[in-house]
Amino acid sequence: MKAMEAKTLKGGGVTSAQGFQAAGVACGIKSGGEKDLALIVSDVPAEVAAAFTTNLVKAAPVKVSMLHSRNGRIRGIVVNSGCANACTGVGGIADAKTMIDCAARKLKTRPREWLVCSTGRIGNRLPMARVRKGIDKAAEKLAYDNGSEAARAIMTTDTRRKEFAMRFKVDGRKVTIGGMAKGSGMVHPNMATMLCFVTTDACIDKRALRSCVDEAVEQSFNRISVDGDTSTNDTVMVLANGLSGTNLLKSYHPQFTLFKETLVRVMRKLARMIVEDGEGISRVVDVVVKGAINIQDARLAALAVVRSELVKTAWTGGDPNWGRIMAALGYSGARIREEMVEIYYDGLLAVVNGQPSKTPVAKLKKIAGKSKFTITIHLHSGMGEYSILTTDLTEEYVRINKGE
Amino acid sequence: MKAMEAKTLKGGGVTSAQGFQAAGVACGIKSGGEKDLALIVSDVPAEVAAAFTTNLVKAAPVKVSMLHSRNGRIRGIVVNSGCANACTGVGGIADAKTMIDCAARKLKTRPREWLVCSTGRIGNRLPMARVRKGIDKAAEKLAYDNGSEAARAIMTTDTRRKEFAMRFKVDGRKVTIGGMAKGSGMVHPNMATMLCFVTTDACIDKRALRSCVDEAVEQSFNRISVDGDTSTNDTVMVLANGLSGTNLLKSYHPQFTLFKETLVRVMRKLARMIVEDGEGISRVVDVVVKGAINIQDARLAALAVVRSELVKTAWTGGDPNWGRIMAALGYSGARIREEMVEIYYDGLLAVVNGQPSKTPVAKLKKIAGKSKFTITIHLHSGMGEYSILTTDLTEEYVRINKGE
Repeated sequence: MKAMEAKTLKGGGVTSAQGFQAAGVACGIKSGGEKDLALIVSDVPAEVAAAFTTNLVKAAPVKVSMLHSRNGRIRGIVVNSGCANACTGVGGIADAKTMIDCAARKLKTRPREWLVCSTGRIGNRLPMARVRKGIDKAAEKLAYDNGSEAARAIMTTDTRRKEFAMRFKVDGRKVTIGGMAKGSGMVHPNMATMLCFVTTDACIDKRALRSCVDEAVEQSFNRISVDGDTSTNDTVMVLANGLSGTNLLKSYHPQFTLFKETLVRVMRKLARMIVEDGEGISRVVDVVVKGAINIQDARLAALAVVRSELVKTAWTGGDPNWGRIMAALGYSGARIREEMVEIYYDGLLAVVNGQPSKTPVAKLKKIAGKSKFTITIHLHSGMGEYSILTTDLTEEYVRINKGE
Repeated sequence: MKAMEAKTLKGGGVTSAQGFQAAGVACGIKSGGEKDLALIVSDVPAEVAAAFTTNLVKAAPVKVSMLHSRNGRIRGIVVNSGCANACTGVGGIADAKTMIDCAARKLKTRPREWLVCSTGRIGNRLPMARVRKGIDKAAEKLAYDNGSEAARAIMTTDTRRKEFAMRFKVDGRKVTIGGMAKGSGMVHPNMATMLCFVTTDACIDKRALRSCVDEAVEQSFNRISVDGDTSTNDTVMVLANGLSGTNLLKSYHPQFTLFKETLVRVMRKLARMIVEDGEGISRVVDVVVKGAINIQDARLAALAVVRSELVKTAWTGGDPNWGRIMAALGYSGARIREEMVEIYYDGLLAVVNGQPSKTPVAKLKKIAGKSKFTITIHLHSGMGEYSILTTDLTEEYVRINKGE
């Protein structure tokens, strides 16, 4: 069943699916002349499913997009970097709406068919004169092969573009799912200063799309952590314009699962790119908790480990200091029994029955010295499992974030 | 009523109260020849109240001391630094008991009259031959003016001794409360890698002492945070030997409140010393939350702010980046309304109605550039208040903790 496998699309991104155009321009929000404004436009109205930050302090564009994504179809998304438009009051809401109005007018669509996103520093108003001009300029540069330009325009402290796409067949026709994302500080479960835009030409209705996106977000962006901070602007938006022309992908469609799994794979790949490009990181670590009483406890245990500054700085030094992991498990809130805990570094036993194993420390050091490794924690108390992809905490992270 | 005020005792510490001796020696647990073993001994059996880590992974000495402190009076405490004796299984328990046995035998007391504490790296067994010799040596060096030696012997990454004592009058007699403590990483509410020993010659029964200690711990050590980690070994122990010879300090005694308040002051001072000596810190920040719906919400809000790596690195750079504080409040779990939030830096308004105030950024920068300042967050939603004393997060912190 070769046709049922999804394949990675080399160089793919947010314009890989049929009928999506994008553009990225510099309009002067950022001081250095870098790109800071992007448009994503679908040729036809698209179904939308979105996930927004759980932070009670929500940026103005988040408030506006939450309303617009609830009903009706979407033609486009306008995004800026360099200013979060958060903590900006009613003026900020007006600015977000103006961004939508400009884009909608220029592209002869209705404002309610638009979504808006911002990312950058909190508390500053947008330079709206520049933003208006930027939107006009971007609209003129829209193209079907322009995803990379848009991916560059949404970057803040990211060091590289994050794009990924996959393609598979449904009813004999090609279906593509592609996307772009930005990190890279303030990344923690339940979103991050993190934006992700995914487009697909799949034929799917709003309800089915929403359930797929909910699951994909839970499996991807809710399982990464760089610094434990959840931002005011985090957003994942998925547009499905149906231009592949297949039968409708409902739960009884034989390829519905393939669609859902591919969406998860695309989002997981983008989430991993965010972690790998985390601010100043030197190590990417998969923290896997098994054998917890239930999934909630597994999650608590994993969260405590990935949030511990002591655990993360030990990784920076290549130190397999599992004692700090034991301490984090102990205060995590998960119901653990010290005597039952096993900890593995890349499959090598470090802790057994809550005490040091016989594995030579030199062997554990070798693993902790790698730029990628997996820590598996087995609590031997039940069937609950959870994993989080995280990073170490480096002097470089402090250096990046202490400046303005 | 001059007699009712407590005065600071210059150079005071754990042997300032009548009838307490102490000693601190080097026995070779630490590799550098530094002091690593301390004894505190009361001439007569003393009432005891203690608070232990809430971490489910408890070090062996914590398990033993929890039992010994529950009933009966205490003659002495034996403490080592350089090894936490945590995650060491039944062997570790045996080691902790052996420490007690050695001390009790040497000083002709009963083992159940002793408490034991350890601090240092998790997962290593104690070098018991050295520890035994160290206890013998320390017992010979016990003296009534030796508190500083003991304070030095319990240090790990601390850069200075932490001692403090106050004296006041009850029924015409002098009563002294003195103590010593150690930090300095893994410091977070509900204890830290933090040990604190307080001695007093006050006449007080176990129940009254316990209630005073509970309140003092809540007002001091549970309100400091360096890095958000709660350790396996945290302990506060208070001994009251009654040698001041006053009437019993019960709740109806006119000076009972004075005793309680002085205990709070001594513990708060020691807690502040721990924060000020936090690993690699450059700033000490008082985070005060007011106007929360209740004290629980105030606590959640304060905890989120002091745990945010982004907030703490901004302080390191002297950046009054209140946007990161707003974001932390938003995900804290406290019920806040963005439009109601006010934030002050040392009394200077930075945020009003959730938006930037008219205070020039230069003025805020001047405050954030200081080595000590207060951030007051007013949520304008109720009467809940909570404050936590914390630090910034520096490159130096990472450097200290990434090594072994």
